Amino acid sequence: MYGAVIHAPGDVRFEQRPDPQIEQPTDAVIRMLATCVCGSDLWSYRGANPIRRPTPMGHEYLGVVEEVGADVRAVRPGDVVIGSFFASDGTCEICRSGYPSRCVQAIGMGSLGAQAERLRVPLADGTLVATPGTPDADLIPSLLAASDVLGTGWFGAEAAAVRPGKTVVVVGDGAVGLLGVLAARVQGAERIIAMSRHADRQRLARTFGATDIVEERGDEGVARVKDLTDGLGAHSTIEAVGTQESMLQAIRSTRAGGHVGFVGVSHGVELSGQLLFYSEVHLFGGPAPVRRFLPDLIGRIWRREIDPGLVFDLTLPLSEVAEGYRAMDERRAIKVLLQP
Amino acid sequence: MYGAVIHAPGDVRFEQRPDPQIEQPTDAVIRMLATCVCGSDLWSYRGANPIRRPTPMGHEYLGVVEEVGADVRAVRPGDVVIGSFFASDGTCEICRSGYPSRCVQAIGMGSLGAQAERLRVPLADGTLVATPGTPDADLIPSLLAASDVLGTGWFGAEAAAVRPGKTVVVVGDGAVGLLGVLAARVQGAERIIAMSRHADRQRLARTFGATDIVEERGDEGVARVKDLTDGLGAHSTIEAVGTQESMLQAIRSTRAGGHVGFVGVSHGVELSGQLLFYSEVHLFGGPAPVRRFLPDLIGRIWRREIDPGLVFDLTLPLSEVAEGYRAMDERRAIKVLLQP
Repeated sequence: MYGAVIHAPGDVRFEQRPDPQIEQPTDAVIRMLATCVCGSDLWSYRGANPIRRPTPMGHEYLGVVEEVGADVRAVRPGDVVIGSFFASDGTCEICRSGYPSRCVQAIGMGSLGAQAERLRVPLADGTLVATPGTPDADLIPSLLAASDVLGTGWFGAEAAAVRPGKTVVVVGDGAVGLLGVLAARVQGAERIIAMSRHADRQRLARTFGATDIVEERGDEGVARVKDLTDGLGAHSTIEAVGTQESMLQAIRSTRAGGHVGFVGVSHGVELSGQLLFYSEVHLFGGPAPVRRFLPDLIGRIWRREIDPGLVFDLTLPLSEVAEGYRAMDERRAIKVLLQP
Repeated sequence: MYGAVIHAPGDVRFEQRPDPQIEQPTDAVIRMLATCVCGSDLWSYRGANPIRRPTPMGHEYLGVVEEVGADVRAVRPGDVVIGSFFASDGTCEICRSGYPSRCVQAIGMGSLGAQAERLRVPLADGTLVATPGTPDADLIPSLLAASDVLGTGWFGAEAAAVRPGKTVVVVGDGAVGLLGVLAARVQGAERIIAMSRHADRQRLARTFGATDIVEERGDEGVARVKDLTDGLGAHSTIEAVGTQESMLQAIRSTRAGGHVGFVGVSHGVELSGQLLFYSEVHLFGGPAPVRRFLPDLIGRIWRREIDPGLVFDLTLPLSEVAEGYRAMDERRAIKVLLQP
């Protein structure tokens, strides 16, 4: 089969890879219906993560089960399925406590390369969730979004303890930040302040439920948020970038006793204990436990209550995956959907 | 009147200071029944905080109201009262949300110097809580402990989300850590692992409810905690020191999805975003909202359900405050009570 392989920063190729096989009795192999490029893939593309050898890419997937191992019970050939970017057993104490992305057996799906025609999914029973039936074509983008960016934005809102009637700031206007806006709205936030400088992303933020847009950053951005919140800062802030600047923006935009949920994969961030102590905000984040949210999120999409697929503003054939990376790197696209 | 004044690291003097007066109609002036030396006072004593001029010391106080300003309603002369190390108005949005130590009008009591014969307490209605009557002499140490170290340990347990049946690690065996053990027990923890190398503090930790003692630190300390928790780490960890080593110990001893409550005043701590992201622990701490806890804690002490005053293992006349600092600095005492 063919799939995406990164050879060096800026060098993603669509090339032949070994056909995935059932290797463990708990594996499934799926045929890809849709996959996509993640903001976190750009860390490698831009050279922020080392690339030691040609490496398959991609960790978001919506597919049809082709084959299952002997021990798989929860899905069967023909099912349309979604999973998260971590395979998880669903049975360990950490999974049962709600953190499947930190499963004691967790396997990063990125290492298996979902930007491909087929994909082996380990721990299929714990990892995959079947859709209620064959999805209409127009639901495909939203269902694919559930695999990572929707679930991650959803976790950002949960980690930021979004509550009905409260004010939420969202730092970052990529797909995760925008879906953080959507999640905050669905979770009941009254006021949602999206920090964004890009007109197209501002529009999408408003579509998803943002009530205010702040274009300023740094001290000015903090001051604008304070202006909008009686001088106190937000109750909840979703951080969806992962840089020093965005983390400080998030912490400083939040009131004492408030919550920061950070879901941007952290790069080069160093936080002083004094800042954390005296800002007195709850800080929680990490790889989103997307698998926990999937049944709920798939249901909301299936009932057409939410339309997270709007974050895909460019669709390409999977064979043009390299152009997908370029478009996102150059910010010509928010998020690129790839069709095999 | 006389009170403690620090002139330089290691140089605390008992000297004449101006008599406190009612300055604002919301002030009260109290005559001290008991005060004490805090672990956080040692940061100045040891030179970790700059001392730019001779500075009054102390922020823990139990006293009798002598005089109140014209607007004070909640307490009156003759009342025995306790307050926290921050004066707070009790009416602003931050106070009402449960974080009085971050009140929009907060005033650090340390700047007023509670290691003294008398003390002006600003915002008396929001700050002071009267005891149900004149306390028996043997309740004085426990009531004084409520002013900071008990309330701070209590907050550590709350911030660490201690729940019935869960396993809690306590990093730090000073008064706050020991009272974190007590708080964890009262809040229902099943297993409480105290990290301590000192036999006397280990005994007190067991008295307060510790079920296990870990003497190791660093990697070995983490490994011991993992051994005791099925390889996963604790559900909740209370950090009560404030150093880089203790913060890393706390974070690394906690399972994914678990909670770290940090109440040691942070000095020289730098946490990498990657550590926070991939440890995926809830992190919350800061100046404890002690005022919120005072009515409950005073009640528990009054009913003799808890005996936090056991942390005082040395009592001195207030005039010997300098010896009190020395004894704590040299770890000859856990905590020193000072009697005017």
